[in-house]
Amino acid sequence: MANLDLTGDVVTLTQAICDVPSVSGDETALADLVEAALRGYAHLEVLRDGDAVVARTHLGRDTRMVLAGHLDTVPIADNLPTVLDGEILRGRGTTDMKAGVAVMLRLAAVLTEPRHDITYVFYDHEEVAARLNGLGRLVRNHPEWLAGDFAVLGEPSDGTVEGGCQGTMRVKISVPGVAAHSARSWKGSNAIHSAGAVLDVLRAYVPRQPVVEGLKYHEGLNAVKIEGGIAGNVIPDLCTVYVNHRFAPDRSTDEAEAHLREVFAGFALEVTDRAPGARPGLEAPVAKEFVQLVGREPQAKLGWTDVSRFAELGIPAINFGPGDPLLAHTDGEFVQVGEIHAALRVLTDWLS
Amino acid sequence: MANLDLTGDVVTLTQAICDVPSVSGDETALADLVEAALRGYAHLEVLRDGDAVVARTHLGRDTRMVLAGHLDTVPIADNLPTVLDGEILRGRGTTDMKAGVAVMLRLAAVLTEPRHDITYVFYDHEEVAARLNGLGRLVRNHPEWLAGDFAVLGEPSDGTVEGGCQGTMRVKISVPGVAAHSARSWKGSNAIHSAGAVLDVLRAYVPRQPVVEGLKYHEGLNAVKIEGGIAGNVIPDLCTVYVNHRFAPDRSTDEAEAHLREVFAGFALEVTDRAPGARPGLEAPVAKEFVQLVGREPQAKLGWTDVSRFAELGIPAINFGPGDPLLAHTDGEFVQVGEIHAALRVLTDWLS
Repeated sequence: MANLDLTGDVVTLTQAICDVPSVSGDETALADLVEAALRGYAHLEVLRDGDAVVARTHLGRDTRMVLAGHLDTVPIADNLPTVLDGEILRGRGTTDMKAGVAVMLRLAAVLTEPRHDITYVFYDHEEVAARLNGLGRLVRNHPEWLAGDFAVLGEPSDGTVEGGCQGTMRVKISVPGVAAHSARSWKGSNAIHSAGAVLDVLRAYVPRQPVVEGLKYHEGLNAVKIEGGIAGNVIPDLCTVYVNHRFAPDRSTDEAEAHLREVFAGFALEVTDRAPGARPGLEAPVAKEFVQLVGREPQAKLGWTDVSRFAELGIPAINFGPGDPLLAHTDGEFVQVGEIHAALRVLTDWLS
Repeated sequence: MANLDLTGDVVTLTQAICDVPSVSGDETALADLVEAALRGYAHLEVLRDGDAVVARTHLGRDTRMVLAGHLDTVPIADNLPTVLDGEILRGRGTTDMKAGVAVMLRLAAVLTEPRHDITYVFYDHEEVAARLNGLGRLVRNHPEWLAGDFAVLGEPSDGTVEGGCQGTMRVKISVPGVAAHSARSWKGSNAIHSAGAVLDVLRAYVPRQPVVEGLKYHEGLNAVKIEGGIAGNVIPDLCTVYVNHRFAPDRSTDEAEAHLREVFAGFALEVTDRAPGARPGLEAPVAKEFVQLVGREPQAKLGWTDVSRFAELGIPAINFGPGDPLLAHTDGEFVQVGEIHAALRVLTDWLS
């Protein structure tokens, strides 16, 4: 594999890094290329942890910006190598999120004298279980590598700033019953029927749509799994409903849990998974300046993203990157060439 | 294995046939013993199909009674050989239903001049899938072997007559939805939530308790299984509810199905399993006489039993046999010696 040319055309660079497969768990080849390319620049300190590569300037600026993107993709679906079709670049990773990574790599190479110090973070294992997440590992192993005043996560955001992210919580609600032969059902108590009361709560629930720092979020409370039943002739003694709650970043995970315990009062509820949301971080002056450069109304980020990991470190963070997030993970994933250039232009203007 | 002594003590005979293991599918040894023993009696014609043995008198009587019992048991649970503990005989098969089989074997040997002609039916594979049922196989292969005016199935009935049986029907109700990411749940439609409407129907349902030929039945409509869900972050596009309906024998299976289609109008419903009930058959003069001899109030049989197979042949049938049906299939299965003698006495009086 030839070395990456970080200073050439950013679309060519996007193609080059897409065409090095890097499905989660298999990022080493790409991480090696990225590390080698960045080490070619004297203005950058380059650090590595596993398949995460961090590069940063040390120019003595008052403020430090963090630009972060993940190197991994979901599995390839016969959509590599990339195909450049006029203004459209198709293939795995083009949207999620190697176009964003290419923009950052080019900035790292070209911006030798940015007006803020900059830390570039390229990490592994974003598309798989949270415990494997490379950015999470950096938070644990080297939080000082991530220090900064503001962070931009280059996930596809359809050309606008998506602020913060909603939190997510999963709970398991266990509804008991009493087993009996179904020929004498009245001797038992049907747990599936009793679980109807849980579904009543879900059906009646009206999710909040709070405005947080000017952005409108939209919560959700949904059963994502239900199971119950022993045999075709037995009244079931247990029905389990798994519920996913998405909550706006004006609530902490503890507050979200208290809310669920109130909503499902009387039911046995166990929290199986929780991740905090992140406030939009749009009140920081650098953020306001950034939004103005983008020139479009910022939107609330509804899905959970790694901006939450920066929020945990006390660093305001936003999502901004080329590509339509609705195309992420689809077999027909693509990015428009114009989106890549636009993202590069905004970030260059902001940082120069 | 010594030959069976059919004319000795009926409790000893019960022990002898219990101590020949005959879990469903493994009845040959016991069927061979039964066949050999019955062939010792000149007043009986003995027939065999697989591991089912049929013996019948040909005395030219105006009426023919059928006595039937299954030879198989559910799996042994360290509860063989049998233990006779004072008045209690413990072990696999004692209740369900070798005490009843022993009573019939003794009658077959001893009643050389009964006042009705009698057909004794001992069959295999009752405790497993209906398609394997030995009585069902006889209905298909040799319905003429089962000809008669009235049938007694020797299943444990706690010393009374249990009339007829309820029918059973299983339906699968598929509730559709539209998948979406759970962070944007309003873009989809939650199938599990929609299935709440099915549970509403089940929770509101008031089962009939109709009186049929003097016996009070008790219907039931119950979810026996529910499943739905794709992943922890996806709005499910399908939820399936499996419902078991037990219906009194004043309804045919077609009527029961029509009833379910009315109850669940608007839902996609598929019948996966159906077996008709059987009317009590207590209006026949021989049945009335039998009930009088038992001297206790007859009860409705709520579970499905093989009496339904006789009903299909147009033969009224009842359940009557020693043992408590609630002990059937339990590891602590037992029968009281007095119950065996009582059943033998009633049947002897009725047939002599």
